[in-house]
Amino acid sequence: MNIEVINTGSELMLGRTLNTHQQWLCRRLADLGYVVTRQTAIADTPEAICGTVREALGRADLVITTGGLGPTSDDLTRDLLAQMLGRPLHEDPQILEKLHNYFASRKRVMPVSTRVQAMVPEGAIVLANDFGTAPGLALSLAPNPYRAGHKAWLVLLPGPPRELRPMFQRSVAPLIRQEFPHSCPYVCRTLRSMGLGESLVQEKVEKHLGSLVSRGLDLGYCARPGRVDVRLAAGVSEATEIVTQAEAIVRRELGHLIYGTDDQELESVLVETLTHRGETLALAESCTGGYIAHLITNVPGASQVLRAGWVTYSNASKSDALGVLPTTIATHGAVSAETVAEMARGARERAGSTYALAVTGIAGPTGGSPEKPVGTVFIGLAGPNGVETLKQNYPTDRETFKQLTAQHALDWLRRKLA
Amino acid sequence: MNIEVINTGSELMLGRTLNTHQQWLCRRLADLGYVVTRQTAIADTPEAICGTVREALGRADLVITTGGLGPTSDDLTRDLLAQMLGRPLHEDPQILEKLHNYFASRKRVMPVSTRVQAMVPEGAIVLANDFGTAPGLALSLAPNPYRAGHKAWLVLLPGPPRELRPMFQRSVAPLIRQEFPHSCPYVCRTLRSMGLGESLVQEKVEKHLGSLVSRGLDLGYCARPGRVDVRLAAGVSEATEIVTQAEAIVRRELGHLIYGTDDQELESVLVETLTHRGETLALAESCTGGYIAHLITNVPGASQVLRAGWVTYSNASKSDALGVLPTTIATHGAVSAETVAEMARGARERAGSTYALAVTGIAGPTGGSPEKPVGTVFIGLAGPNGVETLKQNYPTDRETFKQLTAQHALDWLRRKLA
Repeated sequence: MNIEVINTGSELMLGRTLNTHQQWLCRRLADLGYVVTRQTAIADTPEAICGTVREALGRADLVITTGGLGPTSDDLTRDLLAQMLGRPLHEDPQILEKLHNYFASRKRVMPVSTRVQAMVPEGAIVLANDFGTAPGLALSLAPNPYRAGHKAWLVLLPGPPRELRPMFQRSVAPLIRQEFPHSCPYVCRTLRSMGLGESLVQEKVEKHLGSLVSRGLDLGYCARPGRVDVRLAAGVSEATEIVTQAEAIVRRELGHLIYGTDDQELESVLVETLTHRGETLALAESCTGGYIAHLITNVPGASQVLRAGWVTYSNASKSDALGVLPTTIATHGAVSAETVAEMARGARERAGSTYALAVTGIAGPTGGSPEKPVGTVFIGLAGPNGVETLKQNYPTDRETFKQLTAQHALDWLRRKLA
Repeated sequence: MNIEVINTGSELMLGRTLNTHQQWLCRRLADLGYVVTRQTAIADTPEAICGTVREALGRADLVITTGGLGPTSDDLTRDLLAQMLGRPLHEDPQILEKLHNYFASRKRVMPVSTRVQAMVPEGAIVLANDFGTAPGLALSLAPNPYRAGHKAWLVLLPGPPRELRPMFQRSVAPLIRQEFPHSCPYVCRTLRSMGLGESLVQEKVEKHLGSLVSRGLDLGYCARPGRVDVRLAAGVSEATEIVTQAEAIVRRELGHLIYGTDDQELESVLVETLTHRGETLALAESCTGGYIAHLITNVPGASQVLRAGWVTYSNASKSDALGVLPTTIATHGAVSAETVAEMARGARERAGSTYALAVTGIAGPTGGSPEKPVGTVFIGLAGPNGVETLKQNYPTDRETFKQLTAQHALDWLRRKLA
């Protein structure tokens, strides 16, 4: 089965916006057992839109476009494709009513240009937009005029992610599953690990998975800074059994290095674990500058867990806010095991929390020395049994340094609680 | 001129990685006056790579590929395209020596598979890789075998962003400028604004720019949550004059709403301004949970400016760490002008900073009430002349709420200092 995704928008071609639709749609489709074969981005000009969709329909069973359904003059997709496919547009009274209600509930006058969003090509299925004004559209092309002897579906989705994503989950995923049923069950499971590089993870698990691979297991790895995802999928009759067995093997081999499954984030796992245990956390951040607190507070319900956080960038604030002794800093330096231990202890005491994580390091690009080069970081963990520290080195750019340090600190506490 | 970018990688099609190359390359090329006409992502299979590059060469004057130059078994791009174009590969002794040096300097043994990266297609220009092992390659196709009567350039870049980006700036941008000279100067300037929506920005500036547009000004807008970029470009003989005049008009109309130019981030502008003034900042964050501190500390040199930050998620920590009176919270609520004012004052006093920003609000998804619905936020600014507060409402998802709140707080201080 061929699937193509087409992202339209001149702002994409000027590099003014980041195309997050590609990853999001590809990921959701892959997890349902459908792999996108090609993704294309083009400007929203008539030639580019019609030409690219025509080419894609010449190859694919399913074409999904994003963008160009709104009310402004550069929203051309609906009109152009309706015309190209010979599907006259009709105003849909139900959509129009929803548009009126949308503006009425916000106590705003509906601009005249909005009304164009109620126009529906003949025979199209309307995909409700619960978070905006432009509905999506799904067109069955049977036959597909651009590929002799084939049928196809063309799905038009709105550009804003917070409109597209729920629409895909609610309307498009069920449509695809219904129209393109798998001949066998499709099962996919991702195990997320931290602490080993990609080649070491591969070395540990691959030798035990050979017989499952020969029975249809599709095994993949995805490495990001500090983390490796292991993807286990199968689309054969015994898929559930194969993926379950593979998961057990990977869990046996990687053990506590696995922090979550599928889309789980490390910080969510940690907040969940602490909530479940009725325990709390405090943070004392120097080099990560609030990034760990930011990650934790991205998790709904974090307020149950995070007692307090300190961003103590300066030596004075380490002493004033956390009680780090000035002599400790003078003797060992602000970036030292001794200082980070006092930061963690001070944060835990002041917040009255079960645990406290502290970090201090040299994010760069300046501030390094021969003994403590850029990338040096100390992490401290204070808990009911005292304070421990560890030292790491991440000689990389400033943002990756913050990211790796934050992950390592959170993962350290996660493993302590496992 | 037609330019196509092709991103290869099966992990892209599975949605395991975010394609940041598209935006980055499109942006850099646009700022040089070259607009990418099409971007495609495909799996790294021989059929997909050869087919897509052949199609692109059938349309374009310049084709840039990313990925597939490394040493592993799925790095196929170099070999496949050399074969497709009939350019035999030869081992380049200079690249081989650099590879040996790369591993020697890291005290590691060079894996045998690495050696393939020293292979160069006949006639290719080698683009040095200062941050990794795989060099880039540039091939002049004169004539272009897939487009009769045309010439083309094919540029192969490595996948990792920290290798691709410096290689593009150092080697590819000069090559493109030399091989595809503009007949006229090309000038591009982006003014970044905050505080008005896209349609209002457009309304304010567009009516004054008509005559410059007729003389060749290319005017564009890009809206992101809370921000609008105005892009002014021209590729005509008097481009400099036109863009300079347009910039003056936009600055006159938008005034202090403009916070920066081109790639400048709001937090960088603020750190720079405070550094220049010799002033300092403290932060007291409730609902943004460390995000403002994270933004500020992403800026190299932030340690000169940021005295201290507090993440006071709980009522107790607002009182314990910042001295907010429990009666204030009991009377007015944790989310109130009174509380945020005491947070700002407390942070400023404790940190001994010139200014302090404080935020408290309801990020959601739960915690709202009829008087203070999800999205309500109070911002406090303490300075030498006392404390001011303001109230905003951002009824959106949790992460966008944090982002909009942080931007508004930082921009408020920026405008105070302007």
